[in-house]
Amino acid sequence: MEAKTFPMNGGDGAYSYTKNSQYQRASLNAAKDMIKKAIVENFDVTFLNSNIIRMADLGCSVGPNTFVAMQNVLEAIVDSNPASKIIEFQVFFSDHISNDFNTLFTTLPPDRQYFVAGVPGSFHSRLFPKSSLHFVHSSYALQWLSEVPEELLDKRSVAWNKGKIHYTSASEPVANAYATQFAKDMDIFFSSRADEIASGGMMILIMPALPDEVHYSKLPAGVLFHFLEQSLADMVKAGSISKADVDSFNLPVYSATPKEMIRLIERNGCFKIERIELNDPRAKFDGPLDITSLIMHLRASFEGILTKHFGREIIDELFKRTIDKSAEISIQLEASYSKGTQLFLVLKRK
Amino acid sequence: MEAKTFPMNGGDGAYSYTKNSQYQRASLNAAKDMIKKAIVENFDVTFLNSNIIRMADLGCSVGPNTFVAMQNVLEAIVDSNPASKIIEFQVFFSDHISNDFNTLFTTLPPDRQYFVAGVPGSFHSRLFPKSSLHFVHSSYALQWLSEVPEELLDKRSVAWNKGKIHYTSASEPVANAYATQFAKDMDIFFSSRADEIASGGMMILIMPALPDEVHYSKLPAGVLFHFLEQSLADMVKAGSISKADVDSFNLPVYSATPKEMIRLIERNGCFKIERIELNDPRAKFDGPLDITSLIMHLRASFEGILTKHFGREIIDELFKRTIDKSAEISIQLEASYSKGTQLFLVLKRK
Repeated sequence: MEAKTFPMNGGDGAYSYTKNSQYQRASLNAAKDMIKKAIVENFDVTFLNSNIIRMADLGCSVGPNTFVAMQNVLEAIVDSNPASKIIEFQVFFSDHISNDFNTLFTTLPPDRQYFVAGVPGSFHSRLFPKSSLHFVHSSYALQWLSEVPEELLDKRSVAWNKGKIHYTSASEPVANAYATQFAKDMDIFFSSRADEIASGGMMILIMPALPDEVHYSKLPAGVLFHFLEQSLADMVKAGSISKADVDSFNLPVYSATPKEMIRLIERNGCFKIERIELNDPRAKFDGPLDITSLIMHLRASFEGILTKHFGREIIDELFKRTIDKSAEISIQLEASYSKGTQLFLVLKRK
Repeated sequence: MEAKTFPMNGGDGAYSYTKNSQYQRASLNAAKDMIKKAIVENFDVTFLNSNIIRMADLGCSVGPNTFVAMQNVLEAIVDSNPASKIIEFQVFFSDHISNDFNTLFTTLPPDRQYFVAGVPGSFHSRLFPKSSLHFVHSSYALQWLSEVPEELLDKRSVAWNKGKIHYTSASEPVANAYATQFAKDMDIFFSSRADEIASGGMMILIMPALPDEVHYSKLPAGVLFHFLEQSLADMVKAGSISKADVDSFNLPVYSATPKEMIRLIERNGCFKIERIELNDPRAKFDGPLDITSLIMHLRASFEGILTKHFGREIIDELFKRTIDKSAEISIQLEASYSKGTQLFLVLKRK
């Protein structure tokens, strides 16, 4: 079964993910040195039983970030393994079936040193034959839940998320429903990858995270979701959308704490944690925070799911109203917790 | 380098390849029994060094024919190899970068028993790592040349193809220029596949062919190209297009004779010919020949390349004018040679 899918905005227009993913790219650059170090320390091509290294990027979207990430990984493997000169690389770019693979394929780097394949489907399921992968990378994808927890939509449930679109400003039962769904998703994710990754193979996961003991509403993302929620509330008041439509909408994204991820990985039991750390994704991002640009990023990531639920006609108003709150957003973002909100995980298949 | 590409019409509209490929499908059904027999006789999974069979369909277009073909191959392998129960299949659907992979992926059979990957790129180049494939299938794709031979566009050459769009009604030097280009293309095709297919692996090629000692103009395709050429000539007279535009246009498709293919395969030297035969692709097609439907097929296949050269605005007129010649086309098609115009080739990697 294909999970419900919410692709990044395709194509290369003004609202596309291609044109609005510089923050993700900044995180990627910050991750480059860490990836290199992880590969030098943990990835030894002698475990291969052929001269082919098969790598996958799960949740690749449409580029160009995925190309940069795969190039980083490839160079690190080649540089740290002299034997890799005779090795050929096959890179599998994977994302939901509704991802814009046509754009991905037409923008492939012409000077790539690897064979390309696109793999459509949800990473909350098997995507590859058994033990056929040697390296898996996934950046800013695992935070997407496979589906919205049912209880959030159930009026009789304590986790009914009335008037809210996330757990950032919601009750504890709502946050628990999200956490339970995330744990289920990770269980399937790690089991599937355990089947697919050959013994000795590596997985690097980069994802937004919640530092232990911090509340989600204190994170920059939490602040943005709160103001998006406010804009929707304003639109209910203005009569642009119905209250029921807001009640039944929830953003299916979740940020786990490091402790939570360790527990889920250990419960699965197939991967050894070689490294886990929290980084500041903005450390290497140059220049002051541009709120409009940040909101455009939010739009590129969430327009798909918002359109599916509310219809295309409300999108411009929704983001205009959110941009109108820039001054307020800016104040709250300055006060937000942003030291270490990116989780960097290096795992090895036992 | 990506060869010049002329994809089949994408999407699923009235002029799409998806909706206008029943004749190719009829050929496919005719090929089913032959594929099954070839696999039973020649494909033994004991040569595998893992429990994965990797298959590729080269020139897959957008479906559904490629799904039917891959399912036929998979079933034949499973049925004829009891050991294959523990084997997992990975199917690589490959076509030019400009192929509509989004449509291909969204129409994948939900009950497929294989892992999917899409591979963008020209089969006139390497597409896969060394010895990584076990079975390659290609149906109605090899007739596409990687490019139009230069001489056809050169006013000083004896092979200048003035006023014509193919070799069907052209001089011998024109036909020779096509043959030389085809031989070059096949050389690269067989060398690339020899690198990619593991020893013991199989390749089944199905392609339009010219029976030895028959002239191309006597084939149904030759008749259709001739009338398309006539419609373009009419449009030059009517002033809808320029003479120079017709002079500089040539359909990059070629039908080889069985003798020619044998010579090219033997010259390459990496594949053993297990079977080669000419079939009548229309034998299993039910009902009378519908000229309009045939011309719609022609449009689905060639609209891309015609649009690229002449512009989108002439397409409707061109095919309307061709449909207007239906009575004449019908008479010539009835008289055309159509006993054995499909080449079925079973090759084994030495």
